[in-house]
Amino acid sequence: MELKLISENKTFNGSQKVYSHYSEVCKCDMTFGLFLPEASENYKVPILWFLSGLTCTHENAMTKSGAQQWASEMNIALVFPDTSPRGKSVPNHVDFDLGQGAGFYLDATEDPWNKNFNMETYIIGELNDLLFKKFNLNKLKQGITGHSMGGLGALNLALKNPQIFKSASAFSPITNPTQSEWGQKQFSSYLGTNQKIWTDYDPSLLLKKLGFNTQILVDQGKADNFIELLMPKSLSDQMEGNINLGKFRYHDGYDHSYFFVSTFIKEHIIHHTNILSA
Amino acid sequence: MELKLISENKTFNGSQKVYSHYSEVCKCDMTFGLFLPEASENYKVPILWFLSGLTCTHENAMTKSGAQQWASEMNIALVFPDTSPRGKSVPNHVDFDLGQGAGFYLDATEDPWNKNFNMETYIIGELNDLLFKKFNLNKLKQGITGHSMGGLGALNLALKNPQIFKSASAFSPITNPTQSEWGQKQFSSYLGTNQKIWTDYDPSLLLKKLGFNTQILVDQGKADNFIELLMPKSLSDQMEGNINLGKFRYHDGYDHSYFFVSTFIKEHIIHHTNILSA
Repeated sequence: MELKLISENKTFNGSQKVYSHYSEVCKCDMTFGLFLPEASENYKVPILWFLSGLTCTHENAMTKSGAQQWASEMNIALVFPDTSPRGKSVPNHVDFDLGQGAGFYLDATEDPWNKNFNMETYIIGELNDLLFKKFNLNKLKQGITGHSMGGLGALNLALKNPQIFKSASAFSPITNPTQSEWGQKQFSSYLGTNQKIWTDYDPSLLLKKLGFNTQILVDQGKADNFIELLMPKSLSDQMEGNINLGKFRYHDGYDHSYFFVSTFIKEHIIHHTNILSA
Repeated sequence: MELKLISENKTFNGSQKVYSHYSEVCKCDMTFGLFLPEASENYKVPILWFLSGLTCTHENAMTKSGAQQWASEMNIALVFPDTSPRGKSVPNHVDFDLGQGAGFYLDATEDPWNKNFNMETYIIGELNDLLFKKFNLNKLKQGITGHSMGGLGALNLALKNPQIFKSASAFSPITNPTQSEWGQKQFSSYLGTNQKIWTDYDPSLLLKKLGFNTQILVDQGKADNFIELLMPKSLSDQMEGNINLGKFRYHDGYDHSYFFVSTFIKEHIIHHTNILSA
């Protein structure tokens, strides 16, 4: 598989790279950001996946989250995948929350989406394989986090693949998509009307069913303008009082923006590093 | 003067606001970002001006520099002005380095620019007055920094106005515009052919002529793709070996991007805070 280097910027003593490659799974060119801390020159470092939210590309978290500073300090790599397949040959929709930029980190079963919209297999399969083949990364030390739709993706992929992702966290995740407009709309398009399949992509249901091997960290702003679509209570009620599941923290005054993510990214990277280095 | 609040996001316990207002000096609406640390609720905090580079608006440094984290920790406010007047009624040019987005922080004397392009008076006069009238800021504790064209602006405005700006620093500044295409092109348009006026906007010449009351901090990446236009040597030669002037630091491998700025912003905010709190 051929990787094309799009850009490379030194930052915090490490290297922020952007690559594109043809994806067999998504049947289009895909772009991702990869931050390699200086330590990766000497040994296979752990890696934290950051899945972004609706309308984002690989670039938003890469330029706005401030994650590289702490990844550098804690000797962990970061990967920022795109949020969906893209391109003229890829189906799209006029709404911002369906189609390109809104992949929901699932494998679509329905026409016309099922040819390209296979972000679940892309992340846990194709891109995963690619990263460990090409870079000095420790396959046994993978964590995953994300924001909003990417928070949903991070939780879903971790809960269903604990053999891949040893640590999990999320910022302002969509927590109960089977009960929300952010979920029902997309699942009916991507997955069809069989709602049994939908439950495979609902973090609140998956956590109840599967649990997780390590504590999960979730942060949610109380002034989040999308809180009714995110439905945090379905997850926070479940996690409250059960420290084995982890911590669901509400924060006064914080909204849905990257100004919120950047405020707490340090604590998330510490969370993952502590688990991955154990 | 009426201030219109455009947005407000809690970050690092403080508040990142964006305002617009009609500028009498620039004869158009102007937008700026303002970060107020939590401490500003209790006392008049110092303020650091961040002037951005070519093509930027108020938004780039506000979302990409990571400055709020350290401003919050050190109880200092940040203001992110726009880089030029803007709007349909404001003159422009097809080149990215002339006209809107390229104000060069000077007061234009030539047609058609001189009606709107008065960023020098806007920053040190109108916006300065406005900020201290409307917010809980300490007028006697102002520092200024900037990136690229904004580094030039920060140095020029500080050197000529030490009664306003007690501390100064810059990232990758245009240092010798009278000798560079980034300078000659703009000065001949904005200021006309009398090159004596140009010397009033050249940091290397101004530092030699005027000195400065406190040490200046300048950071420059050695892998900067614009280094021939920035001409750092004219300033670094002058500062080298004269610790009274401050420090001009070159950094291996770093380029001209915000990935460079964010790497060193902490040290700049410490630099300003140390001087302003003395």
